[in-house]
Amino acid sequence: MQSRWWSCGIRPVAWTWTWSLAVIGAWCIPANEGALAGGIDIAAHWMTDLKEGVCLIGFWFNHEHCCWTSNETTFQERDRCPQWKSWAELIAGASEGPFAYVVNYLMYLFWALLFSFLAVTLVRAFAPYACGSGIPEIKTILSGFIIRGYLGKWTLIIKTITLVLAVSSGLSLGKEGPLVHVACCCANILCHLFTKYRKNEAKRREVLSAAAAVGVSVAFGAPIGGVLFSLEEVSYYFPLKTLWRSFFAALVAAFTLRSINPFGNSRLVLFYVEFHAPWHLVELAPFILLGIFGGLWGAVFIKANIAWCRTRKTTRLGHYPIIEVLVVTAVTALMAFPNSYTRMSGAELISELFNDCSLLDSSQLCGYKQPSNTSETSVDNSLADRPAGEGLYTALWQLALALIFKMLITVITFGMKVPSGLFIPSMAVGAIAGRLLGVGMEQLAYYNHDWLIFRGWCSPGADCITPGLYAMVGAAACLGGVTRMTVSLVVIMFELTGGLEYIVPLMAATMTSKWVADALGREGIYEAHIRLNGYPFLEPKEEFEHSSLAVDVMRPRRGDPALAVLTQDGMTVGEVETIVESTHYSGFPVVVSQESQRLVGFVLRRDLLISIDNARKRQDGIVSASKVVFTEHTPAQPPEAPPPLRLRGIMDLSPFTVTDHTAMDITVDIFRKLGLRQCLVTHNGRLLGIITKKDILKHMAQIANRDPDSILFN
Amino acid sequence: MQSRWWSCGIRPVAWTWTWSLAVIGAWCIPANEGALAGGIDIAAHWMTDLKEGVCLIGFWFNHEHCCWTSNETTFQERDRCPQWKSWAELIAGASEGPFAYVVNYLMYLFWALLFSFLAVTLVRAFAPYACGSGIPEIKTILSGFIIRGYLGKWTLIIKTITLVLAVSSGLSLGKEGPLVHVACCCANILCHLFTKYRKNEAKRREVLSAAAAVGVSVAFGAPIGGVLFSLEEVSYYFPLKTLWRSFFAALVAAFTLRSINPFGNSRLVLFYVEFHAPWHLVELAPFILLGIFGGLWGAVFIKANIAWCRTRKTTRLGHYPIIEVLVVTAVTALMAFPNSYTRMSGAELISELFNDCSLLDSSQLCGYKQPSNTSETSVDNSLADRPAGEGLYTALWQLALALIFKMLITVITFGMKVPSGLFIPSMAVGAIAGRLLGVGMEQLAYYNHDWLIFRGWCSPGADCITPGLYAMVGAAACLGGVTRMTVSLVVIMFELTGGLEYIVPLMAATMTSKWVADALGREGIYEAHIRLNGYPFLEPKEEFEHSSLAVDVMRPRRGDPALAVLTQDGMTVGEVETIVESTHYSGFPVVVSQESQRLVGFVLRRDLLISIDNARKRQDGIVSASKVVFTEHTPAQPPEAPPPLRLRGIMDLSPFTVTDHTAMDITVDIFRKLGLRQCLVTHNGRLLGIITKKDILKHMAQIANRDPDSILFN
Repeated sequence: MQSRWWSCGIRPVAWTWTWSLAVIGAWCIPANEGALAGGIDIAAHWMTDLKEGVCLIGFWFNHEHCCWTSNETTFQERDRCPQWKSWAELIAGASEGPFAYVVNYLMYLFWALLFSFLAVTLVRAFAPYACGSGIPEIKTILSGFIIRGYLGKWTLIIKTITLVLAVSSGLSLGKEGPLVHVACCCANILCHLFTKYRKNEAKRREVLSAAAAVGVSVAFGAPIGGVLFSLEEVSYYFPLKTLWRSFFAALVAAFTLRSINPFGNSRLVLFYVEFHAPWHLVELAPFILLGIFGGLWGAVFIKANIAWCRTRKTTRLGHYPIIEVLVVTAVTALMAFPNSYTRMSGAELISELFNDCSLLDSSQLCGYKQPSNTSETSVDNSLADRPAGEGLYTALWQLALALIFKMLITVITFGMKVPSGLFIPSMAVGAIAGRLLGVGMEQLAYYNHDWLIFRGWCSPGADCITPGLYAMVGAAACLGGVTRMTVSLVVIMFELTGGLEYIVPLMAATMTSKWVADALGREGIYEAHIRLNGYPFLEPKEEFEHSSLAVDVMRPRRGDPALAVLTQDGMTVGEVETIVESTHYSGFPVVVSQESQRLVGFVLRRDLLISIDNARKRQDGIVSASKVVFTEHTPAQPPEAPPPLRLRGIMDLSPFTVTDHTAMDITVDIFRKLGLRQCLVTHNGRLLGIITKKDILKHMAQIANRDPDSILFN
Repeated sequence: MQSRWWSCGIRPVAWTWTWSLAVIGAWCIPANEGALAGGIDIAAHWMTDLKEGVCLIGFWFNHEHCCWTSNETTFQERDRCPQWKSWAELIAGASEGPFAYVVNYLMYLFWALLFSFLAVTLVRAFAPYACGSGIPEIKTILSGFIIRGYLGKWTLIIKTITLVLAVSSGLSLGKEGPLVHVACCCANILCHLFTKYRKNEAKRREVLSAAAAVGVSVAFGAPIGGVLFSLEEVSYYFPLKTLWRSFFAALVAAFTLRSINPFGNSRLVLFYVEFHAPWHLVELAPFILLGIFGGLWGAVFIKANIAWCRTRKTTRLGHYPIIEVLVVTAVTALMAFPNSYTRMSGAELISELFNDCSLLDSSQLCGYKQPSNTSETSVDNSLADRPAGEGLYTALWQLALALIFKMLITVITFGMKVPSGLFIPSMAVGAIAGRLLGVGMEQLAYYNHDWLIFRGWCSPGADCITPGLYAMVGAAACLGGVTRMTVSLVVIMFELTGGLEYIVPLMAATMTSKWVADALGREGIYEAHIRLNGYPFLEPKEEFEHSSLAVDVMRPRRGDPALAVLTQDGMTVGEVETIVESTHYSGFPVVVSQESQRLVGFVLRRDLLISIDNARKRQDGIVSASKVVFTEHTPAQPPEAPPPLRLRGIMDLSPFTVTDHTAMDITVDIFRKLGLRQCLVTHNGRLLGIITKKDILKHMAQIANRDPDSILFN
């Protein structure tokens, strides 16, 4: 019967696998993640509003919820209601005037400092790994390196709490990167419940890849973008199977999100936009300009941020992380409060910048001069281009100041000892720049309808330029410049906004931004932080272009003492122990004999030590003079000799080898594709040396004139 | 100066590379492809209309263009104008009545047979490789196999022409798969113009991967879907670099498309849909049902189609391809003409099925009973659910017949000796099934508002069920069942339709369809055809789960004669020639000596023959008694000996080795990831045997109880 099932194509094993993963990877992680993300959202929203005031009918309501329950609000002023009191009203009884302003200002500063102080102290006290975005470390972990405790339960708990605090404190950081870390923690903890995943590193890494996809899916409501983000940016090895599993996990996450309906508009979309005018080919020029800006900013940001982080690492600055966070928070709060565009949260700012102005819009950004006759408004509520009015000019000034402020403060914020993501700040910078350029283009077109470039598509009274679209393209360009994503970024952008028709502008800006940024420095922000921290990460994107051979990179070098090897039946326990103790290598090749140097296998230091230790303790007669035997059959021994110690079981019988003439680009490729940690080098069948991942990284660092000793030991 | 440029990060080499690829891969291929695809579209449209009638003001106008120029058409009957004459009007002077019908029927049949006859004869006479979809072969080529002439200029020209003929003949086939083949031909021909790509197989394959992306991008107007299709379905090895390059090529293609504006709606979207009602969670049940249908149909279709193709291969049927095509065309035409849903082209049918009914819609599918009071129509021109009328019932019957017809005819059509794609027929089957289910659900909800499942979201007068959405989900499910795509399919679907909000229904249906189909047979249609044709393709998706070792698979087997090896300095030219002539191996390992069997390198048969031949012709004194020397330094020889033949230059000094104890799953993994054709097997440093890709495929076929001799020699 069993065989008929098999021949019919139904494979019980594969199904068990799929279903167990469906349970672990798909229901638990996205559900937990969804709940966590929802909780984080709600808490951060409430605490952000707490900086400005409090709700009288219940302090646990945020500003919006507080006024929902009120009957006295009109549609126009939804966010003003008597139940919501600003701190000035509550403390000083005044809602206007300079005194109230100062009270509000001080309370804002106080809460910001309190939140950030709590965040940094919690991180320092309980989970030092909870700081930063976590994506560089997850990339490194997925490439095969082990950082113990990085994905543990303490990191999960503390990162969740401190993320809310950090976001609420008003610092220029986002929650998207940290959510990926949180999702990976969830997945890792769940993996520990199942023997299959606890014991198999490779399978666990596949689950982590899927978790990274879920993290982004949940953070942005962008399921496909999340899968592609995991593929393009986070994962090291992403087989098609993982693609499907991530896709399934993202499906469940999207479904959960759709059920929770967090953005309150029955759409999965975070910043839904609806533009009325199609874009024109001429507009590609400003879009590419935004791409160039994004690329330049990305490259400069990375260089500045790395320089600042290196300063923190090497000078006394690094010894006072709490003071650093408090100072940066104070500066941010002091500078941000007076400008409404920096005072609002990053997501709100982006949402406002993406928005197209309708007739009823009361926002400052839509402060155009009203058209004299109503015939200029077209049927579908879209508006013809209009001259900028007072309100818009004020908004532009404030935006320009906000741009400079955000560009500077993000450089010193990212990398502090609090959880901090980069997506929202980068997008905010780009969206501001894009909106400014968009309004500029709009006014240019309005006053110069007769210019050759505008003729034919931008006649008077037409709605030809949409500043919100420029903001969207600018956001994509800046995020692209910082992270160097391409396909995943475009997909995330159109999942974020629903703007499928704007795929060509987005692609053009993203591609330009990547080229410009790559020309100024090959590394994205995550790779730069990996290198800064010296993680042993073999970059899969960069081609190895040097013409060296395996023999040039392997140990021992010319002049070094010979390679420490064990022989398969010629050494005693004592001799083996001497070799192990006199070196620090993590493994030893086993050869037939010292003369022939023919390779038999590879033994890990750890296994060797444990086996000898166990044998000495339990096995009768194992002494220093006992022979260590790696062969299948124990060779004949003199009768008075102590019993031999048989260790064939712990030997890897299929160690990886290359010949000494193998080109290093091929060797590097083999290391990457097979995820090796070491590889033995032979010449005409004789063992010659060994290459480890660290040797390769050092060699690459030497070629690039960097300090080879900055690489951590794996 | 040069070094400063380098340290500044600008890398001239990388840039040259990028730009040369930008020129080749991005401008030429998409541009050519765009032009070709545009030409194919226009020609096919014209010839499809020619089957029904002709334009009097110019026979080169198709029906639509013909009536554009007419002033006598009204908006309601855009496709009726006096300039366009059906064949009955032209020949018999009658436009109505049974006689006119018969004349039109016969003319339709005549043109269909003429087109298909031309298509099949052209393919047979000039380019036998032009038949089929080409995707199985391109997959095989990308995995490292070489099929000479498959991507040549004759294939390009003939495939382009015959594709138009085949599509116009009304056969149940699409043009999307063949367009991928055409794009790859373009890319391959362009590669031959550049030394870099002509000489480097790997780089050429990367360009082909990008071309496959461009093919789908152009066929569907889905740039990102194209890139993901290439990643998920076509390519074997898809590094991030290729991802970016494909992305760039797809960007240019999308841009070209946007400039040409082929669909006439200033959108990139082929089947643009605009649905008014959001979907409800309860509807997931029918969506998953559609997924199950799609999976079942996909699995059954693959089994039936493969069985039919095997019959064609093994019986006398295969000797009469022209008659086969003519018979199938005749059957298709005779059955399709009376039913308007089968008479229209696949793309038109899908477009109509996806469409949501508006008030003004005159199509039969929208033949609902008009609401008695106008208050039921909601503000946004969407319609409340209504009872089905006479017209709709007729349409449903016709659709049901069309479904059965399409399901049967596609099985025997795909695989004939004409260019034929599967995307459009599969989508049509799914769209019909989906629309039927959708209308059924709509009527169920209309007459049973009070059922528990409809309560709360589907009250009377509400527009709750959109049959067009069901058609869309059904189309995705069936295409998924046939091809087993997931992520790329969802992206293509929402790039095709612009329906970002329906991502969860699409994902659910696609995933269900893949699971159901995988449970009934692991292979998608392309893999099944690869296996049917016996191409040496090492499936990257399937896991190798057998516990055999390298020693079980390698040659020579136990009892076979020893492995044919050369020694590095012990053999004469005559001895080498004897070994080469007495075997058919494509390469020989070189060892230090027959006794030690220590491996030095690997020599290809072809290089060996050419070198010996050249040496005998040109080099003085090379005779059969000359020593063949593979060492670096020529060993001392007796003075009277003829001069040695030095062949170190043609030897691969870094042949790939594994030990005899390496598990086969690891070996298979190495073959896949490194794209190997052979690998040497050693034991304790001595050469033991060789494993080729063919050995692995035979071993896998044996495990699966298939005929191991069905695999072609590579």
